Order: sequence, then structure tokens, then C-alpha cells
Amino acid sequence: MPHPTPPSQPALVALDWGTSSLRAWSLDSSGSVLSASTSQDGLRAVGGRAAADKTSSTQAFADALAVIYSQLGAAGVPALACGMVGAEGGWTTAGRLDLPAPAEARAFQPAAVAGASPAVSIIPGLKTAPDATGACDVIRGEETQVLGALARLGNPAEANLILPGTHTKWLQVADGKIMNFQTAMTGELHAALLEATILGDPVRRGEAGAAASPQELSAAFDSGLQHSLSHPGQPFATRVFSTRTRYLSGELEPSGVSSYLSGLLIGDETAAMLPQALAPGAPVALCADGPLGALYQRALSAQGAQMPLLEDTALDGLRAVARAWGLLPETDSTTALTVS
Amino acid sequence: MPHPTPPSQPALVALDWGTSSLRAWSLDSSGSVLSASTSQDGLRAVGGRAAADKTSSTQAFADALAVIYSQLGAAGVPALACGMVGAEGGWTTAGRLDLPAPAEARAFQPAAVAGASPAVSIIPGLKTAPDATGACDVIRGEETQVLGALARLGNPAEANLILPGTHTKWLQVADGKIMNFQTAMTGELHAALLEATILGDPVRRGEAGAAASPQELSAAFDSGLQHSLSHPGQPFATRVFSTRTRYLSGELEPSGVSSYLSGLLIGDETAAMLPQALAPGAPVALCADGPLGALYQRALSAQGAQMPLLEDTALDGLRAVARAWGLLPETDSTTALTVS
Repeated sequence: MPHPTPPSQPALVALDWGTSSLRAWSLDSSGSVLSASTSQDGLRAVGGRAAADKTSSTQAFADALAVIYSQLGAAGVPALACGMVGAEGGWTTAGRLDLPAPAEARAFQPAAVAGASPAVSIIPGLKTAPDATGACDVIRGEETQVLGALARLGNPAEANLILPGTHTKWLQVADGKIMNFQTAMTGELHAALLEATILGDPVRRGEAGAAASPQELSAAFDSGLQHSLSHPGQPFATRVFSTRTRYLSGELEPSGVSSYLSGLLIGDETAAMLPQALAPGAPVALCADGPLGALYQRALSAQGAQMPLLEDTALDGLRAVARAWGLLPETDSTTALTVS
Repeated sequence: MPHPTPPSQPALVALDWGTSSLRAWSLDSSGSVLSASTSQDGLRAVGGRAAADKTSSTQAFADALAVIYSQLGAAGVPALACGMVGAEGGWTTAGRLDLPAPAEARAFQPAAVAGASPAVSIIPGLKTAPDATGACDVIRGEETQVLGALARLGNPAEANLILPGTHTKWLQVADGKIMNFQTAMTGELHAALLEATILGDPVRRGEAGAAASPQELSAAFDSGLQHSLSHPGQPFATRVFSTRTRYLSGELEPSGVSSYLSGLLIGDETAAMLPQALAPGAPVALCADGPLGALYQRALSAQGAQMPLLEDTALDGLRAVARAWGLLPETDSTTALTVS
């Protein structure tokens, strides 16, 4: 008869707190999930409530977190957050590490939120060095996914990570450092084209009608992907116009417009990035939650690049930073890694 | 003492009738302009009036034209139109010529509008052959600008024309035929990015404030142009994100966001098109009305391509088709060209 296991106690609340959503977990001291919550209570909702209630945004964030503590049954333990909650306009500005930065959790010192009780701290983002034309790029939230993904890959010294999203990030790790990343605002472009251009007309007019089958949506996605891959010399503004001409010719059904555009845009992004954003020989992984990861996998596979898909890496990254900064005890394996 | 010149009589009403605007001219038998009118009475306004008045769109077009006749003082003469008035959803579908098509007005037989009095006819559009992936492209309205531009260039057998607009067209004439064209929806992309993405946030929030000086706007345009030209390997969704990062770093003022984006998008389009859309050795011209022509000239000049800018080519094209189809007498020079 096995010894009875004592019930685990919450040791930390981990938060992936973005613009439009909030994911929260209560963890025990081993990092195991005791309870979880997902809501639309992102910065936009919290900010809207502060404006409606004429309260400070600081108070609105504290109130939102109190609700989470109650839902998770995690009274009194500290919280560690990543995401836009640490941006200008969030709860507390958590700063950004300049690249190159060590690709390890110990480098990401969380910023304490003044006056929060229990204690809340937020993981800093990343900022690239300016390129030759003075342009730089920024990340907030994905750095934690990166730390989680690297932990899951065994903390390799070299890696290429693709993090699909509204703003997809392509990130390179070399010699144990995060060297560079680039943003492609592919998801946001997709939404804007459907919302505000002639390409989205059939969708906005409701012509899409009954939902297409998954096979039809995949075929439309592949058609857009192939269009993009087979017209590399055309400007984006020409490639994307094929959505209109194919619709006018009857070749593209209204129900396939969104998927066609998705294939076209992800094709455009991946075809340009593959030759230059991935260091050869290093492990490559996609980090994504939800259906977007599978679409990128499909587009990359069509170009001969097979990549594993890692899901839920934000939680792993939050765990790694919590252990590195004493919010959770270091595990044996983490200790071993640190010593080696 | 010169002989007194008899007052000219209207012989034709020429119409450039698009989605959002209507330009109209009353011409005498020599093709000289007697009176002109420009209004926002495009298809959208006429269609809106038909819906509001619960009348047929056919009647609404006839009513709009009656107003123009009255303004121009051109009662009783026939009308010749080009533009979206000949599209599905316009007054009468004027069809499209398949490419390659002769680059001469005689090939563009106008379609008569049934029941119109005085007689109205509409110039047909153009349609490319499907490319290797089955995609084709369409023009309606610009074909008339092309005929006007070719007349102004002396009807060369070879030519490259760029027609900037909401949907910019790049068109090739070879061996006296219109061989091909491509559309770049650059103007519409610019509007959609400002309206529906994070890039336009500072503009939508009213941060642009007081108007920037022309010098500041030109500098922002050039900055966007140079960003595009110096990052050819990046996907569009990455190049365009520089608008955000430069704004966040304070390098790009809110008042310069629209011009920066304009430079970036026109740079993206022209850099991709220049190597492949222009047949070497043939005359090249930009055909545009308003400030867009000068912006394209600036972008092309920065890439070593000096191009003349031809304005008001639609009227010349309407004249050429009118002469070819007996709505105006052929001029001596036209006759000579036809005979030679």
C-alpha cells in the first residue's frame, strides 16, 4: 500500500497576461499545476473597467488579480507574470533586456509591482540592437515562451524558434545567447485585409454562408500558399490581389477567402524568412497554442522544413524564471544544469 | 484682322466615371474642351441614391447624367464613358478584352447602354490570360488612360506604363499590343494599415496633431522608402512593422506615420516591379493625376529610374476612342497615323 501523498499547497500563481487574454495557473512547490483559469480579462478589458469605474488602472489590475486568486484557491502566495502587463500602459513597466542576452531564466530578473500584496513580479521583455538603418524590434511575453521552449529542448546553445501569433517572432539562439529576432505582423495583416480592403468584401457581405469543410479550408489555404511561393518576384501588394481576381473568376469561394489569405500571408512570411532567419544545423521548433501552429507547420512542411510544434511553452518559461529567482525551489534537474 | 471664329458647339460628353468620383467634359467636334465638371458622384453615391429613393440603379445613372448634361450645357449630344460604370454593378456591363489586345483605340468597341437618350456608350476593360497558377488580372478605366498615354507618346509599338492609384497597374505594350499588366493594391493597403492595424494607432488617436511641413513629410516618405529598399530579404509583414518600432523608439513622429508607410509601400512595390515589369529599351511613363504621381516619381528616381509623368490621360483616351468609333471626326493627324 503506497504511502498517502500529502495534499499539495499552492506556492505560486503564474500568469500569462496579454492584451486580450489572461491565462493563470496555481502551482505547487514542485511546479505542478493545481488549478488553472483562462479568461478574456486582458489589458484591454481591465483598462476598460478602470475607465468605466473611474478607478486607477493600478487598482483595476489588483482587483482583476484578486478574482483570479479566488478562482484558483491560491490566497497569499506570490504571483509571477509575463506579457503586456509589463509594458508601458500595463501594471508596471518591466523593462527590456538588450540583445544579445543570455538564453537562460537567471538573466530575466522580474520587476516587482510596487504595493502589490501578495507580491507580484513581471518578467522583462527583449529589445534588439538597432540595425544598419536604425530600426530595432521588441518582444514582450514571447521571451517567456522562448525560455520554456529552450527548457523543453534541453537548453541547447543553438536554436531557432518561430513563435506564430498576431505578431509572429522569428528568434535565434547562438552560443547560449538570444542573438536576434524579427517580427512579422502577419496575423494582424490578415485581420486588417479582411476588415478593411476589397479582398474581404465577400466575407463582410456574408457571402461566406455555411461553414466550409475542413478539407475545403485546407485546399484554400494551400492555394494561397502556392500562389505566394510561385510568385516570389511580385510585390506583396500584387500577390495579395490574387485573392480578388480568383474570387472574381469564381475559382475561390467566399467561404475560402480567409483561409486563402492566411495561406498567402504565411507563405509570404515563411518563404522570405526560411533562407535567412534560421541558423543551419541548430534545432528548430514552432511554439504556438491553438490552430495557428498547425498552419505554420503546413506552410513550412510544403517548403521542406519539418518542425516540431511545442504547445504551452509560456507556463514552462514562467516555471523556469520562478525557479531561477527563488519563487519556486530549484528542481534537481535545474540544479544539475546550473552546476554543469 | 482675323476672321471671326464661329462659337463651338458640343459634339460629345466624355466621362471618366469611377467608384468614388465622376469627371466629365463637354467636347466640340475637334475634341477641345468646352466645359468640365468634377464631382463625387461615383458609383457608390449613385447606388446610394438609388437605394434611398427606392428607384432602379438604371434610372439613378440616367438622372446623374442628366445633371451633368445640364452643368456642362451639352444637351442632346452622345456620351462616351470609361471606368467602373461599365463593371458588373455599374450601369451596363461593358465587357473586357482578352490580352494580348491591339494597343489602339479601334480595338475598344464601346458597349451601348440600352435605352439611354441621348446615346451613352462605355469603353470595355481588359483581362489578362491566366498565369501558370490560373490567376488572372483585370482593369477597368485604366485601359482608357493607357490609350491616352500612348497617343501622347506618339503611339509607340513598345512601351511600359505605370498607373498609380488605389490599385496601381504596371502595363506592357510590345509589338503594338497590350501584352500584360499586373495590379498592386498599394493604395488600398496603405489605407487599411492606417485604419485597422497597430501601425495607424498614433494617427487614429489624433497624435498627428498639427500638420507636418512638406519637408518633414518628404523626409518621412524617404525614410520608409529607404527602409524598404534596404531590407529586400524581409517579408512584407516584417518590413512594415518598422513603422511601429520606429514610432516606439521616438524616431518617427506621429505626423510622419502616413508618409513613412507610403514610402515603405511604394518602395516595396517599385523595387519588386522594376526588374521584371519593364521591358528594356521601351519608353516608360507614369500616368497619374494628383500627388500620387510625384510620390512614385520620387521612389523610382531613388532607384535610378527617371520617368516622365503624364497627367489627365483619361481624357486623351476618351478622345481617341471617340474618334476611332465615329463619335468625333477623325483628326488629320489621326487619319495620317491610320493611313501610314
